[in-house]
Amino acid sequence: MRLLLVNANTSRNITEHLAAEARLSLPAGWQLNTATGAFGAAVIQSRRDCAVAEHACIEAVEARMADCDAVVVGVSLDTGLWALRQTLAVPVVGLLEASLLTACLVGGRYGLVVMGRQTVPLYRELVVRHGQAARLAGIEAIAAGAPEVYAAPEQFESTLADAANRLVAGGAESVILVGAVVAGMHRRLQPRVAVPLLDGMACAVTQACGLAGLALPKPGAGSYRLS
Amino acid sequence: MRLLLVNANTSRNITEHLAAEARLSLPAGWQLNTATGAFGAAVIQSRRDCAVAEHACIEAVEARMADCDAVVVGVSLDTGLWALRQTLAVPVVGLLEASLLTACLVGGRYGLVVMGRQTVPLYRELVVRHGQAARLAGIEAIAAGAPEVYAAPEQFESTLADAANRLVAGGAESVILVGAVVAGMHRRLQPRVAVPLLDGMACAVTQACGLAGLALPKPGAGSYRLS
Amino acid sequence: MRLLLVNANTSRNITEHLAAEARLSLPAGWQLNTATGAFGAAVIQSRRDCAVAEHACIEAVEARMADCDAVVVGVSLDTGLWALRQTLAVPVVGLLEASLLTACLVGGRYGLVVMGRQTVPLYRELVVRHGQAARLAGIEAIAAGAPEVYAAPEQFESTLADAANRLVAGGAESVILVGAVVAGMHRRLQPRVAVPLLDGMACAVTQACGLAGLALPKPGAGSYRLS
Amino acid sequence: MRLLLVNANTSRNITEHLAAEARLSLPAGWQLNTATGAFGAAVIQSRRDCAVAEHACIEAVEARMADCDAVVVGVSLDTGLWALRQTLAVPVVGLLEASLLTACLVGGRYGLVVMGRQTVPLYRELVVRHGQAARLAGIEAIAAGAPEVYAAPEQFESTLADAANRLVAGGAESVILVGAVVAGMHRRLQPRVAVPLLDGMACAVTQACGLAGLALPKPGAGSYRLS
Amino acid sequence: MRLLLVNANTSRNITEHLAAEARLSLPAGWQLNTATGAFGAAVIQSRRDCAVAEHACIEAVEARMADCDAVVVGVSLDTGLWALRQTLAVPVVGLLEASLLTACLVGGRYGLVVMGRQTVPLYRELVVRHGQAARLAGIEAIAAGAPEVYAAPEQFESTLADAANRLVAGGAESVILVGAVVAGMHRRLQPRVAVPLLDGMACAVTQACGLAGLALPKPGAGSYRLS
Amino acid sequence: MRLLLVNANTSRNITEHLAAEARLSLPAGWQLNTATGAFGAAVIQSRRDCAVAEHACIEAVEARMADCDAVVVGVSLDTGLWALRQTLAVPVVGLLEASLLTACLVGGRYGLVVMGRQTVPLYRELVVRHGQAARLAGIEAIAAGAPEVYAAPEQFESTLADAANRLVAGGAESVILVGAVVAGMHRRLQPRVAVPLLDGMACAVTQACGLAGLALPKPGAGSYRLS
Repeated sequence: MRLLLVNANTSRNITEHLAAEARLSLPAGWQLNTATGAFGAAVIQSRRDCAVAEHACIEAVEARMADCDAVVVGVSLDTGLWALRQTLAVPVVGLLEASLLTACLVGGRYGLVVMGRQTVPLYRELVVRHGQAARLAGIEAIAAGAPEVYAAPEQFESTLADAANRLVAGGAESVILVGAVVAGMHRRLQPRVAVPLLDGMACAVTQACGLAGLALPKPGAGSYRLS
Repeated sequence: MRLLLVNANTSRNITEHLAAEARLSLPAGWQLNTATGAFGAAVIQSRRDCAVAEHACIEAVEARMADCDAVVVGVSLDTGLWALRQTLAVPVVGLLEASLLTACLVGGRYGLVVMGRQTVPLYRELVVRHGQAARLAGIEAIAAGAPEVYAAPEQFESTLADAANRLVAGGAESVILVGAVVAGMHRRLQPRVAVPLLDGMACAVTQACGLAGLALPKPGAGSYRLS
Repeated sequence: MRLLLVNANTSRNITEHLAAEARLSLPAGWQLNTATGAFGAAVIQSRRDCAVAEHACIEAVEARMADCDAVVVGVSLDTGLWALRQTLAVPVVGLLEASLLTACLVGGRYGLVVMGRQTVPLYRELVVRHGQAARLAGIEAIAAGAPEVYAAPEQFESTLADAANRLVAGGAESVILVGAVVAGMHRRLQPRVAVPLLDGMACAVTQACGLAGLALPKPGAGSYRLS
Repeated sequence: MRLLLVNANTSRNITEHLAAEARLSLPAGWQLNTATGAFGAAVIQSRRDCAVAEHACIEAVEARMADCDAVVVGVSLDTGLWALRQTLAVPVVGLLEASLLTACLVGGRYGLVVMGRQTVPLYRELVVRHGQAARLAGIEAIAAGAPEVYAAPEQFESTLADAANRLVAGGAESVILVGAVVAGMHRRLQPRVAVPLLDGMACAVTQACGLAGLALPKPGAGSYRLS
Repeated sequence: MRLLLVNANTSRNITEHLAAEARLSLPAGWQLNTATGAFGAAVIQSRRDCAVAEHACIEAVEARMADCDAVVVGVSLDTGLWALRQTLAVPVVGLLEASLLTACLVGGRYGLVVMGRQTVPLYRELVVRHGQAARLAGIEAIAAGAPEVYAAPEQFESTLADAANRLVAGGAESVILVGAVVAGMHRRLQPRVAVPLLDGMACAVTQACGLAGLALPKPGAGSYRLS
Repeated sequence: MRLLLVNANTSRNITEHLAAEARLSLPAGWQLNTATGAFGAAVIQSRRDCAVAEHACIEAVEARMADCDAVVVGVSLDTGLWALRQTLAVPVVGLLEASLLTACLVGGRYGLVVMGRQTVPLYRELVVRHGQAARLAGIEAIAAGAPEVYAAPEQFESTLADAANRLVAGGAESVILVGAVVAGMHRRLQPRVAVPLLDGMACAVTQACGLAGLALPKPGAGSYRLS
């Protein structure tokens, strides 16, 4: 079985970073392939970046769709998720979506830690779009953006842990560390936070491979059928 | 003052049709310019079509952004609306969004008549995304898709009027005729429907020009600032 | 075209103040007429004030309904709005309602700055009643009530700007300055606030005249038909 | 202890009818007084009727407020309820509000049977205004309006029972018979309906007298304090 | 008429305490009987405690169901409420449910003061389960758990009053003091809080006896019929 | 790795049926153990049944908790789920919960097919309790109850398929076949339904084993910590 991990931004080093994390969660019997966006932003940070990356993401996946059994969209804004879910016959799962649903299984309400205050509205809207607002305890942003944290993650550990702990104090029973570039950081932060820390990549790989195992048919009706 | 009407699909005849309708609602002192998507679907009908058109729409507008005072996104799925609103300094308004907000001023709950049953989920999700679900009475689809209706609108008048009247029976106090290609059909259907019929183009032109009149500053914070 | 501005309280000086502001937003080809409540409170501040003013507002408008093409209810609690919308054949728009809908077009969630802590529940309920709670970021009150601010607006500029900025810090992407008596203050406060400040009167006049331009028919069914 | 029943419309025969029903639910130790609106509609059926009756209701109660320990607003649109709750020191309860809250204690979701299709939006909005939409299974209207049913109630028993049974089929676990003029009809309809039928007057008298027994203090803060 | 008060935990001293409070609200003509859980926790504080107590509560009541006209479940988590409501022919009312509904009649939004921070999610979920989240202003927890407060209530008066006042500052127009073990403490705290303080036991006894007075039939359909 | 499947009712033949289905979805490297409720109903069909089974379920699992790495609660009402999630250190997943979250990954809104009309309210409440109502398209019941269908499943295939297709016509983009006793029936019904049919057991086993793979720590704070 082959899992295709698509990075919707154009940074191949981020693709490699994501792939390394994805492999840690890959079930037995699965191999990982990757694809990277051919145009658009180096790191997706704005509404415009996300819209252009959606197109890049679709094209990157469609070039590889013949040889995969499941797809993980390796972007925390779930860029292109809905379009790919329509055009492909195999499961497609996004990082944020997978985190939200997995957090539901942990129990109670969850919080999100995001990078860059101007991204808070984007994630809040995305939670609503997924129909998951009822379980959202809150969103805490750190001031630094994704590129800064990616460049020197160890410098932001305390800031991120503090944000997570503010969410716990506000009632979060699990915390999602949001952002493809911080995939894997949950391992170092977990000892500082009293509730489970969820990593989007681990959740998405698990959900995508699990969903492939259910072998559901492609819809023949509705908005996800092949048009 | 110059209003830019962008058609996110690639059909120039639809652009002309939309422009003719837009001119009917243009306030005194405004002129209309148009732009058309350079790539993507001839008529947007699916999730993938919409995602690609979002990119085309952004590029089409950005090529013209120097010479406009407001933008109407002439697509009933409000394709590219959020990205354009971030990157432009002038107001950007979508057809569905403008219809929903205008319907609120008419009073009570509104219904939507859409073309193609598989588009119902897209419009329902869009209403939620705009935060307007509390006023939605229902969505009725006719079986025919947008291209069919565009080709022979007079053949679908009864079907569309029936759909509108089902919504009225279910409590709708106004009805939005959804779809760029049916812009203007409300004039012929109104005599058959007991509540106001709203046309997306008329609403969007009115709202965009009205918003330009308020002369609000570009945000310097949040998710709509220039990144 | 004639716009009727009704002030539901009994203070003619407030009517004059509102009219001066309304004229600043009046489109070409429109003239403004005014009406003032004949009984009730000098400034509406409580639930009882609002209920009595509703009756006064209806009577004041009905006495003038023959000679107007649109009505703005010049009270931030949208007093009498629903009743007038039923009895009149022309558009009727309220200050808060118009602000909320216009803020949706600006993008993201909005915040409200209100005067007098005891009015917060009234505005929160009104946002819900308009079906607009999904876009509400928060409501901030200043301690001073509307009469105090009206008497010496310049003394409250800093307090109002601070309240607006608290909303921005909490995620508001636009801020509505609520209260008929502060109509126009947004011009002086805007330089201190990083997101667009919306003025109810400017929004309501624009929406009412725009709606009149759509020339929608009076409903023949539902709760807004003439009984 | 003295319960004041106010009829917000101007029909004294309806006041008498309501009073007779109210006495059936009056706890030991309570006596009933009545008040009737001095101006407005004979039967409240529209948004305008309701707005004017709100003023009449406030004046009718305030003339009697010295000699009562609780107030029931005997109108199914809860006309004037919020204003009276602010101005009085004793409990004030409305017919619909009391029915909705009592239905919650019966369990599950409830349905509403209303008279006149054009009143459905008014009751739906009222349920939302009370914050009770989460438990609403549906609203069914009969075509006849309140005056017709009041004039010949026995002719509408089957129609009303059918409406109630449609709600039960749709998941309602209790049904509220809405309308002051049908107070008491539940006794004759109950044998035809498989779930409990709630009568607004019985619920409101019980809730108002029960609330008086709790002897809660008048708020000194918030929107219900004396202004 | 006989009211059965069931304490779902196994502490007979708490049963006695609750009974003493219940008697203070018992209407004329009613006598009080009590039942106590035969197995489970001494004080219910966790999800597991609550689940086991549900069974104990059902058995304790069913042993006495022949001789009662109404039941109050004397636990602030409304343990067993829904099951008992199905199996009994008489009204069954829970402490939290009764408080929430009574608070609605007081007006505006209410706040909850709870004991033990880890119980906040349980009460938040319970408010949602009752369909009452629309009126919830917030929940404030004190650090001490129910057993500690029960052991020395006077030591926690200031802490509880502070929590209530934080809710009032946040917009609560009434405050519910949550927890069977604090039944009656509202009398001493009320002078320190500007809005009405609601006591679950007083509310539940009043609602249960009031509901019995309505003499509603047992449902013959739906999820509350006898299976 | 060991997965414990608990059947909360007392029917060992159902346990065997469930176990056979569970094994079909068990990932490589996992073995299945089972437990059965020691007291309560043979098939859970009512609110009381569910409450008692919750206790039985907890006891059955706790007797085995030393030797398992994940637990599936094999009851479509998710009986005991929340209590077990608190008391165990390993993941606990319920059938309905797992189905709802998996359906979210399929895309759009989902429908539920349930057995016995009186169970509709229970499942609707459960969807709300899981915070998943935003994605619910509807619930369709067949008249026959779970025991009847379990006794002769082939007789109900058409009835169940019809119910699923009504949901698809109403906008469901996937359908969950609800009920432990129908585990596996989706294989025979899928050819008759145009959208994916989800089986609770397949979803729950996949989610429970996937969640175990994430190796999340036991919460040290909140309502799911060990008390």
